[in-house]
Amino acid sequence: MDMLWNGWGDPAKAAPLPETVTGLLRDLLGVEPRSTPALGLADIRPPAPTASRAALRALAAAVGDEHVRTDGESRVRHTRGKSTPDLLRIRAGDVSDVPQAVVLPATHDEVLAVLRACAAHGLAVVPFGGGTSVVGGLAPQRSLFVALDLRRMNGLLDLDPVSRTAVLQPGLRAPEAEALLAGHGFTLGHFPQSFEWATIGGFAAARSSGQASAGYGRFDEMVLGLTLATPEGTIDTGRAPRSAAGPDLRQLILGSEGAFGVITSVTVRIRPLPEVRRYEGWRFRSFEEGATALRRLAQDGPRPTVLRLSDETETLVGLAQPDAIGADPAQGGAGCLAIAGYEGTAEDTAYRSERAAAVLRDCGGTPAGTEPGERWAHGRYSAPYLRDALLDAGAFAETLETAAFWSRVPELYTAVRTALTDTLTRAGTPPLVMCHISHVYENGASLYFTVVSAQGADPVAHWTPAKHAANEALLAAGGTISHHHGVGTDHRDWYVREAGPLGVSALRAVKRRLDPEGLLNPGVLLPTD
Amino acid sequence: MDMLWNGWGDPAKAAPLPETVTGLLRDLLGVEPRSTPALGLADIRPPAPTASRAALRALAAAVGDEHVRTDGESRVRHTRGKSTPDLLRIRAGDVSDVPQAVVLPATHDEVLAVLRACAAHGLAVVPFGGGTSVVGGLAPQRSLFVALDLRRMNGLLDLDPVSRTAVLQPGLRAPEAEALLAGHGFTLGHFPQSFEWATIGGFAAARSSGQASAGYGRFDEMVLGLTLATPEGTIDTGRAPRSAAGPDLRQLILGSEGAFGVITSVTVRIRPLPEVRRYEGWRFRSFEEGATALRRLAQDGPRPTVLRLSDETETLVGLAQPDAIGADPAQGGAGCLAIAGYEGTAEDTAYRSERAAAVLRDCGGTPAGTEPGERWAHGRYSAPYLRDALLDAGAFAETLETAAFWSRVPELYTAVRTALTDTLTRAGTPPLVMCHISHVYENGASLYFTVVSAQGADPVAHWTPAKHAANEALLAAGGTISHHHGVGTDHRDWYVREAGPLGVSALRAVKRRLDPEGLLNPGVLLPTD
Repeated sequence: MDMLWNGWGDPAKAAPLPETVTGLLRDLLGVEPRSTPALGLADIRPPAPTASRAALRALAAAVGDEHVRTDGESRVRHTRGKSTPDLLRIRAGDVSDVPQAVVLPATHDEVLAVLRACAAHGLAVVPFGGGTSVVGGLAPQRSLFVALDLRRMNGLLDLDPVSRTAVLQPGLRAPEAEALLAGHGFTLGHFPQSFEWATIGGFAAARSSGQASAGYGRFDEMVLGLTLATPEGTIDTGRAPRSAAGPDLRQLILGSEGAFGVITSVTVRIRPLPEVRRYEGWRFRSFEEGATALRRLAQDGPRPTVLRLSDETETLVGLAQPDAIGADPAQGGAGCLAIAGYEGTAEDTAYRSERAAAVLRDCGGTPAGTEPGERWAHGRYSAPYLRDALLDAGAFAETLETAAFWSRVPELYTAVRTALTDTLTRAGTPPLVMCHISHVYENGASLYFTVVSAQGADPVAHWTPAKHAANEALLAAGGTISHHHGVGTDHRDWYVREAGPLGVSALRAVKRRLDPEGLLNPGVLLPTD
Repeated sequence: MDMLWNGWGDPAKAAPLPETVTGLLRDLLGVEPRSTPALGLADIRPPAPTASRAALRALAAAVGDEHVRTDGESRVRHTRGKSTPDLLRIRAGDVSDVPQAVVLPATHDEVLAVLRACAAHGLAVVPFGGGTSVVGGLAPQRSLFVALDLRRMNGLLDLDPVSRTAVLQPGLRAPEAEALLAGHGFTLGHFPQSFEWATIGGFAAARSSGQASAGYGRFDEMVLGLTLATPEGTIDTGRAPRSAAGPDLRQLILGSEGAFGVITSVTVRIRPLPEVRRYEGWRFRSFEEGATALRRLAQDGPRPTVLRLSDETETLVGLAQPDAIGADPAQGGAGCLAIAGYEGTAEDTAYRSERAAAVLRDCGGTPAGTEPGERWAHGRYSAPYLRDALLDAGAFAETLETAAFWSRVPELYTAVRTALTDTLTRAGTPPLVMCHISHVYENGASLYFTVVSAQGADPVAHWTPAKHAANEALLAAGGTISHHHGVGTDHRDWYVREAGPLGVSALRAVKRRLDPEGLLNPGVLLPTD
């Protein structure tokens, strides 16, 4: 099934906002219901491909006629990703970033053949997995490009139960991967908000991190091996879990966002399916108090499998449990809601939850039982649907995220909040800014912000200064430009400053060696020459 | 204090072999006591530097006259590292790899100035920390080079107790670093066999892994940030524990072995000093049985802080506890000795050791009490001294190591043992080959081999074919060319095959960008053009 072309996920799961919320939007944020009727997919007619017949023939020769799609719908469905500006543009019928064609290879060798064909005909290539990028990772700075959709490469190639490793193809969506692994009694344990639609290759290319990262680790920590197809040939890396044989090539490919090559297989660490899954809610008087509790668990343990904390605003609005949004405000309650989840054997989860509870209490937390935890777990993938409903209601809603070392987290939190609030307020649309910590490490944590406001006359132009102000603020406060969304084109100019001129220059040297003609995702991650 | 110029460590700690061992060497391996008297440091007179006066003046301008040393002793002390071939060569008076000078910078800017001076005068640069490389990491393929000794950069620059991070200078020896951190109640937890002499910069450059890696992680997992001085400028990386902002530049610098630049500061993860340290011995009937027990603990926990297993031969000889070598053979005992060590709080170590004991028993292990564990801990750094004694006694002794995924470990073990035994036996010197697992991961483990034999007429030439046969065997069996010793010049040709032509080519592109004139450790890690 294809994802909704102008929104998120499965149209059947779309849900309108409760009256309470639309009222709240109107009264609190001055959101006016939209009057313009939404465009239908059929209303959008992208310009015919301008790529030469010869180029299209070469692509067909590489993957077979039926796997080169030039129809309007296929091309529109592969236009940009799922950031709010992406959705606003496609809803407005803007298909200026439409690919020339959608190419669907079935094997590593077919990917190599496609890359050769594109090199021969000067076509750029955008690797396309789930299409869920929220940072402009699918909008190259080149008009003549094809979308390389990896959905046909969706197999489990190997599973080693002794080493607990599996070799997955890049086009596997996370639920498909989990189902294949579950058939052998294993799980990957990677559950990002994009879980239902994103792919294994995308997780690797963008350094994804899932909601259970406290227990299962980030995706880049799960990857043991990678195969990369480039215009210059193949890189195959990962003979041991760890090695002292030079720089770690895996970590050079992870996060390369399709700019170095196309990831055609990923060897991952797998774990036995948990016997027990238990998610608890905890309340803290303040974000600072809760953050200290999370830090203590991350540093001294025992470590929950899921560990997150919503700030006062997010807790009050109820977004800490997206399904609860707009329910009886008391639902949200005062203070800050934290979720501590435990997955594993009965004995291990019992030990960890009991010891962790003592730490959480010692830090000022009060148990809220499993009900808020189960609500969170039930609604864990529904926030993007909520965004669609907000956009439909005429509101603007977007998220952004960062990470830093623990001692910088408080300043980072204030700086980003202030930058967003001040910029949008000055623009006449005072926002609601919410935040949560959803990934913790011994040495630091992530901060994930959600912004809701009125749209303004030109919503994208209206949002851009606020987004830029947030980027400036988070870099100034010592944060990284992205903890798990990636760089894409939206973060590139700030990423270049974070990595520094020589660091970027070293990565450009790698790109020039692997992609001398600059065909791979031009302008994504790294600036074009 | 300087390390023994022609052997390991502190001359005061040198100890001759017990009679039982010399007898064993003679009877079992046919080792003939050496007759040739050892050379003294004074007997070795390296050729005068051929570098131009102007070059030496430029170096003095960069760091100050008194910090450019051209005397014979300083240069001989910076000739090669501490592999057995290195020791045999220097003991034979071979100083063909002697540096032109030893340069001692005090700051990052002085390092940059030295690199500029070297570029201007065509001098190669070998970054020199503890000088403990056992893979030819200090023997560049260039006669005109200087050793850049970082001992003056030995400070603790910053410590953040909230984030639990510390910024260390590269020339800090591990015991100095631990002492500085202990002053604040913290430890790094990195205890490789080279602990007493190796430096922070060297650990990072060579991806070191310590004996407590099961609990504290590998050194490359402890590193959160790095500053790299290169002929083209500076790279400063690591704003957050983890990030999705592109490829991980830290992992490109870690393992670069001085070929990309000089590491001038390392931000590391630190942990509270443990309340309790407890090391237990366990016996298994076979290496396979013990390896299964280690795998279960690594995969399902609870995880000891130290976890190692000696094979039957190593156990029998008593090398599982170097201090016990040659003691009453019964000391060694039958089967395989494992060490499980626990460090942390009293409660946590009690919980882990109790639960781990149940797993070890379930896998067929029988507890041997804390005595073997304490013996191991006491002798944990003494094996290199033992090697000197063996060389003095006319024997040949060397080690090599690899790692692989669990399912490949048995085949890897047999393949390397067979390659070493067959090659040396055919050469007329049947060896004693011992092995242990000293680093475990969820998905695999390391194998560390010790070889003892007679020397043969030309010991280095005699060993080389066996070392090459082992390299071929471990690559063929799916292992990595090094788990923690690194690549250097000794492993380079096999590393190139492991990384593959395009992978190596991508790294060469990085080197060319950072070191366009190829001054940094030429021929180390990567082949020269």
